[in-house]
Amino acid sequence: MRQIRCQLAMSLDGFIAGPKGEADWIETDPQIDFSTIYQRYDTLLVGRKTFLTAPSAFCMPGMKTFVLSRTLRQSDYPKVTILADDCEKKIADLRAAKSQKDIWLFGGGKLFRSLLDANLVDAVEVAISPVMLGEGIRLLEPPGMRAKLKLTSHKIYPSGIVGLEYAVA
Amino acid sequence: MRQIRCQLAMSLDGFIAGPKGEADWIETDPQIDFSTIYQRYDTLLVGRKTFLTAPSAFCMPGMKTFVLSRTLRQSDYPKVTILADDCEKKIADLRAAKSQKDIWLFGGGKLFRSLLDANLVDAVEVAISPVMLGEGIRLLEPPGMRAKLKLTSHKIYPSGIVGLEYAVA
Repeated sequence: MRQIRCQLAMSLDGFIAGPKGEADWIETDPQIDFSTIYQRYDTLLVGRKTFLTAPSAFCMPGMKTFVLSRTLRQSDYPKVTILADDCEKKIADLRAAKSQKDIWLFGGGKLFRSLLDANLVDAVEVAISPVMLGEGIRLLEPPGMRAKLKLTSHKIYPSGIVGLEYAVA
Repeated sequence: MRQIRCQLAMSLDGFIAGPKGEADWIETDPQIDFSTIYQRYDTLLVGRKTFLTAPSAFCMPGMKTFVLSRTLRQSDYPKVTILADDCEKKIADLRAAKSQKDIWLFGGGKLFRSLLDANLVDAVEVAISPVMLGEGIRLLEPPGMRAKLKLTSHKIYPSGIVGLEYAVA
């Protein structure tokens, strides 16, 4: 079965964005090969807030984008699919659908928490930037169960970014 | 000058203890050489709450222990030194004192935040256990400034623990 993978940039203290959604703290590194990352996926899951920061950026060629939102209207965003209800069932169906490619869960916080609690996340892959934010949007929202992980790979980049890949146990 | 180093175990999502101070999630690894870690230090800084979880454990041979607390009485804890006021000045003096060994800041949360904001932390060293806690005591309490770091070393352990060492920029 294809995987649902939460793949994100993170600060050392566990934030995926600043308090206002800021991404300006994310270190860049020429050795991070985004085209290889993109090629792994054909489906993108994103929450409403993250999507609205840059709607057109989430419509990539070869990628089907699903936005989880109870308030956005499908007719306003024809290039994506709005998931308003029954999301877990629909996402489980996406995972069960035949494809050589994986599903990119692009978002932490509440979305990650709800899918994790529904046993719908297979892997977590973070690129830890060398910074502590102190506040912001967390990788995983409380409350909820602990999640055991298994480290499956790692890579250290010249910029000091630490890439860690885990399977959800 | 000797360094003040915040050295801790952490979950992937940035917690150093569970909501009730739990440490049962911390992965152990026979390759982590605690005696080498201890030998680096001759001084330990710890907050009241952490200290009270196991007072005798924080009194180690060859280590001077300083507990930051406005409520504990020195006479009740003769083996340690209680720092009740003027802490930043006293800790700056400890750092400036001549010694071949470093100062172990054993605690995150508020204590780490206050010393970081006072430019009294030189390095951060975390051993990331393969788990997400979702809630608990954070590496760094809000509010506060971002802190830029510089990755200075890393080590991957067979247990999946990731050891990362940073200089505070």
